[in-house]
Amino acid sequence: MLKIGIIGATGYVGAEIVRLLALRDDIKITAVVSNSFAGQPFSAVYPSLRGIYDNICEELDLDVISKKADFFITALPHGVSASVIPGLLEKGKRVIDHSGDFRFREVKVYEKWYKLAHKAPDLISKAVYGLPELYRNEIKTASLVADPGCYPTCSILGIAPALKNGIVSHHDIVINAVSGVSGAGRKSDLPYAFCEIDENFKAYGIANHRHTPEIEQELSLICGKTVLVSFTPHLAPIKRGMLATSCLNLINEELSPADIHSIYEDYYRNEPFVRILPLWQTPETKYVAGSNYIDIGITVDARLNKLIVVSALDNLGKGSASQAVQALNIMAGFDETKGLLSSGLYL
Amino acid sequence: MLKIGIIGATGYVGAEIVRLLALRDDIKITAVVSNSFAGQPFSAVYPSLRGIYDNICEELDLDVISKKADFFITALPHGVSASVIPGLLEKGKRVIDHSGDFRFREVKVYEKWYKLAHKAPDLISKAVYGLPELYRNEIKTASLVADPGCYPTCSILGIAPALKNGIVSHHDIVINAVSGVSGAGRKSDLPYAFCEIDENFKAYGIANHRHTPEIEQELSLICGKTVLVSFTPHLAPIKRGMLATSCLNLINEELSPADIHSIYEDYYRNEPFVRILPLWQTPETKYVAGSNYIDIGITVDARLNKLIVVSALDNLGKGSASQAVQALNIMAGFDETKGLLSSGLYL
Amino acid sequence: MLKIGIIGATGYVGAEIVRLLALRDDIKITAVVSNSFAGQPFSAVYPSLRGIYDNICEELDLDVISKKADFFITALPHGVSASVIPGLLEKGKRVIDHSGDFRFREVKVYEKWYKLAHKAPDLISKAVYGLPELYRNEIKTASLVADPGCYPTCSILGIAPALKNGIVSHHDIVINAVSGVSGAGRKSDLPYAFCEIDENFKAYGIANHRHTPEIEQELSLICGKTVLVSFTPHLAPIKRGMLATSCLNLINEELSPADIHSIYEDYYRNEPFVRILPLWQTPETKYVAGSNYIDIGITVDARLNKLIVVSALDNLGKGSASQAVQALNIMAGFDETKGLLSSGLYL
Amino acid sequence: MLKIGIIGATGYVGAEIVRLLALRDDIKITAVVSNSFAGQPFSAVYPSLRGIYDNICEELDLDVISKKADFFITALPHGVSASVIPGLLEKGKRVIDHSGDFRFREVKVYEKWYKLAHKAPDLISKAVYGLPELYRNEIKTASLVADPGCYPTCSILGIAPALKNGIVSHHDIVINAVSGVSGAGRKSDLPYAFCEIDENFKAYGIANHRHTPEIEQELSLICGKTVLVSFTPHLAPIKRGMLATSCLNLINEELSPADIHSIYEDYYRNEPFVRILPLWQTPETKYVAGSNYIDIGITVDARLNKLIVVSALDNLGKGSASQAVQALNIMAGFDETKGLLSSGLYL
Repeated sequence: MLKIGIIGATGYVGAEIVRLLALRDDIKITAVVSNSFAGQPFSAVYPSLRGIYDNICEELDLDVISKKADFFITALPHGVSASVIPGLLEKGKRVIDHSGDFRFREVKVYEKWYKLAHKAPDLISKAVYGLPELYRNEIKTASLVADPGCYPTCSILGIAPALKNGIVSHHDIVINAVSGVSGAGRKSDLPYAFCEIDENFKAYGIANHRHTPEIEQELSLICGKTVLVSFTPHLAPIKRGMLATSCLNLINEELSPADIHSIYEDYYRNEPFVRILPLWQTPETKYVAGSNYIDIGITVDARLNKLIVVSALDNLGKGSASQAVQALNIMAGFDETKGLLSSGLYL
Repeated sequence: MLKIGIIGATGYVGAEIVRLLALRDDIKITAVVSNSFAGQPFSAVYPSLRGIYDNICEELDLDVISKKADFFITALPHGVSASVIPGLLEKGKRVIDHSGDFRFREVKVYEKWYKLAHKAPDLISKAVYGLPELYRNEIKTASLVADPGCYPTCSILGIAPALKNGIVSHHDIVINAVSGVSGAGRKSDLPYAFCEIDENFKAYGIANHRHTPEIEQELSLICGKTVLVSFTPHLAPIKRGMLATSCLNLINEELSPADIHSIYEDYYRNEPFVRILPLWQTPETKYVAGSNYIDIGITVDARLNKLIVVSALDNLGKGSASQAVQALNIMAGFDETKGLLSSGLYL
Repeated sequence: MLKIGIIGATGYVGAEIVRLLALRDDIKITAVVSNSFAGQPFSAVYPSLRGIYDNICEELDLDVISKKADFFITALPHGVSASVIPGLLEKGKRVIDHSGDFRFREVKVYEKWYKLAHKAPDLISKAVYGLPELYRNEIKTASLVADPGCYPTCSILGIAPALKNGIVSHHDIVINAVSGVSGAGRKSDLPYAFCEIDENFKAYGIANHRHTPEIEQELSLICGKTVLVSFTPHLAPIKRGMLATSCLNLINEELSPADIHSIYEDYYRNEPFVRILPLWQTPETKYVAGSNYIDIGITVDARLNKLIVVSALDNLGKGSASQAVQALNIMAGFDETKGLLSSGLYL
Repeated sequence: MLKIGIIGATGYVGAEIVRLLALRDDIKITAVVSNSFAGQPFSAVYPSLRGIYDNICEELDLDVISKKADFFITALPHGVSASVIPGLLEKGKRVIDHSGDFRFREVKVYEKWYKLAHKAPDLISKAVYGLPELYRNEIKTASLVADPGCYPTCSILGIAPALKNGIVSHHDIVINAVSGVSGAGRKSDLPYAFCEIDENFKAYGIANHRHTPEIEQELSLICGKTVLVSFTPHLAPIKRGMLATSCLNLINEELSPADIHSIYEDYYRNEPFVRILPLWQTPETKYVAGSNYIDIGITVDARLNKLIVVSALDNLGKGSASQAVQALNIMAGFDETKGLLSSGLYL
């Protein structure tokens, strides 16, 4: 029985991880850390878990919690993770971190976009970017895995097959993406109030969203060239779900839509959680909400010689919590798909 | 491996049953019957199940399907069930039916409220009302189980402890309840269109909803007196979820709120899916959406000497699909809770 | 041109009043007071009003604002109103107040339910309850009008015709009501966050909601007997809208449904904003959202000899802001319907 | 008093026009034509209008209705409009048409994208594209005005200032846009059912949406070059509202963001319904829902030398119904802003 501690357990990502692990027969959540709700049963904070996970939340005390578990998942704000994780690693713990702190290869990229001095720059080279489709082998033995951002997971997996196979230009990539509101975390700020969000749609973080350099880093590594992307995120009045529409320039006109579709199918042939839709079909967030799947649909605009890729995932699923569980399964030597194969709720 | 056939599989209740059973290691869905979608993969109708349950939907042909499975779940409109089920029973199959056709002890009550001549009145006495909290033993050996209605499940379980223990009057019971839109089924009628439903709230079926006599039948059996209820259903712009607010007259003033709370806790002490909230707390549909749980909260209005019971469930969960699976587990001799213990999605 | 000042203008009720008055040709909003947003243009707080009402919000300074206007509408929290309004009245201003402070005839009722010592008890006898259908004449000359609560407006107007005409018992009145989320005000508290509210439904304030005694006071005055009501409010995931379902016991069985319907039509025959639906039809919140109308539908449950009244209004319309404007029209001698006859948005 | 007939009055666009005109003192709606609801009061179809507009819907009979009004607004499906409008024009009526039938200068473009032979190709040259910001003068005297599509209005007005002033390339324009569900009309098709739409987000019509050539036609006319655009529409779970995010390549790097902002402000300086937001601010659909305004925000991505324009309108407002009323005001010689200056509902 693997003992897991979750730090930052009462945010939406943390709570989703608790939900996913609470009934596992090979994993036991031995510590849930939440400074805000220390002393309260977890199920008082999330009553859906009443009778399922009632353990008491505790404060962050590394000495105490490090005795309770061998693996930790940190779902903390960026900046905070980098100050907590070194202590865990020193005590020999393996860590999956959901902040942006360890996703970047170059500290200066992090510091520029996050406007923050990195608190543990020496750990960056040890961290593995936790996207199993790209780094499965590295994740197996990593002591520190950086759970990717939701927009990067959605965008990178949608664009990777085309870019890797050289069928689209690495220039002028335009990504427009939409997130559910839970992507902002469990916040009580006015802009996230029901009356402000419902029946409303908007763009935000134009030209400066922090997931941009994360997308660019991985796409650059995939094609071996420096990739810059125009990335515009939007907020839709849905709780969960993310959809990215990537507009890519096809390099030549020789490939048929069916050829391109085959390239996509081949690229992900052995991936359990990537589903390539039939040609011309496009995904909807409800196909994946509540699950670890990412659905990808491609359309060729022959008139403009462009490839439009639409990719959809659950920002609390493959975009964060269940992707962390997938990494955990890999790290711990479990079946990678354990506890993750269920479909989400169609409605 | 138990072989199950689902008839009427592409409605919302049927699809939810497929979702719940698709990954079971002790059950195999060997037939999904849908006249509307015969010949199409189930996952083309519900793309969330792509790669998870891709079997082809087939037409209703009793000779064909009865060779494929030993248990059947029918999620058909009322009236249709009663014409299909006799054939299944004759072939020795055990059946769980989700229509209203076999929920009533008296055929005349059915015929009055459903305005329909019953097509198999002789089977009524063999059918067991599939509410495990009331009829667990009968369900075990039944060949025909009538899966209860959503409003009745929600209302009956909320009122039963008080009525059974004689602490409230059986007169003047007023139930106001609210359903999610999926309760109407997978319909394309205009009143269920997004633009007509969203940001809207209404009552419907006042004084004539068909679940009324079902509630009255079971409450009457519980207390041994004829119970009539004022039942007013409402429609809220939510996909799943049901909440019933029952206003009951306390018979005397001697019991403290804590006493009444204890009565409720005792009544359901061994029930795995009924959760009594702490005194004064009230359930919300999001505590139970996507799960088989029903949450019940009680409040005593000392000023009026009334007991207000609020009960919440998922109309596609404990209100239909997962309750049918619970009955299936009982009938088949599986652990009653198999595959049903997960919490739903808090968001 | 009547000069109006709005105090507490940046809450949802205040902003709705600004929206309703901004383009009037007979009224000019000369002061918008908001301590939170003082110094900012009103349209920076509510960008929908950009170019329509861009005046600067100012702090509450009685000496300053009382020179700017002759009428004031206060949309302040209870307790705060009672400390501000005496100063306005002393300066000869006429005031419409939207808090609960001046709605009660008896200070002890207010103090019991609001758990607060009243700060201006001597003004209570001067205040007029601002429900034009009951107190039109008193409103005309009042210097202080208490804008009724949303639940009371919805409940009282739904029950008044039956109670006034003696066709229902004043005992055992059960009201279940549902409000849109804007009823809680422009709050950033977590329970009102989109992710907590959307796709969720709950009851709240059971047996202790402050609108209960307000309903009881007015119903008692209507029938001349002490009326107590069981009132249970609920929260639906809609921004605007309120619906009350009142369950009433018919006193005799001689009246036909058509008779009762006529009683309702007669009672409101000359009311411009009360719409009695045809018999057996029931209102929906979308019929009235964004407007000053209240729609009322009645159903007779002959089986139980009960009358079920469903009434619907917009909690920001007839339930608060536009009802205040209706009172303002009456007080100022304008056509009572000025600026208020538009339908809301069906969608 | 101008007499107006509305043909296709019971769709969402038609009903919104009725709402906008019902209380006008200078216009009288003398005929509402709806084959589906002929014989029923309009307010039975849209109960929000009870007591406000109760006239009876009638069947389409040109001889009858042409005697009732001088102006007609047709809100009919494409193809149908082209068969009805010639008859109206022959009788000397002036017409505003909301279908796609008369929006194109070249019949072959229409026929290619709409896959339909045009039924009145000779009228195309007489029709004026009803975007007042581009064709105000032509609208004044037109006998046939083609009310623009929602996506074209939103996209064209967002891009026009940059393209007209030559600061962006006319190549590689990428538009991603989102519509509310009412854009699909009052349909009872399953994909528009509440349970299928709510909490869901998707793209649709990729590379083949019929509004694409309409956008291209007008942008080409603005800059005098052939413009092709990559246009991807999406569907968000909102009833009303539209937002377009246009990604444009700046031609040089000499202009500061403030310069570009000034270009936008200057371009629309005298337009009553176009609101340019302060630099770096971006519009939200709730700023304009229910109104005739279009809000435009610009952001310069200096890193990529791109201009990101976000424009928002109400697809039932400036995107269809209220824009038709604006054109009507112009055609009839009324104040262009009459009845249209109100803000929508912020919530």
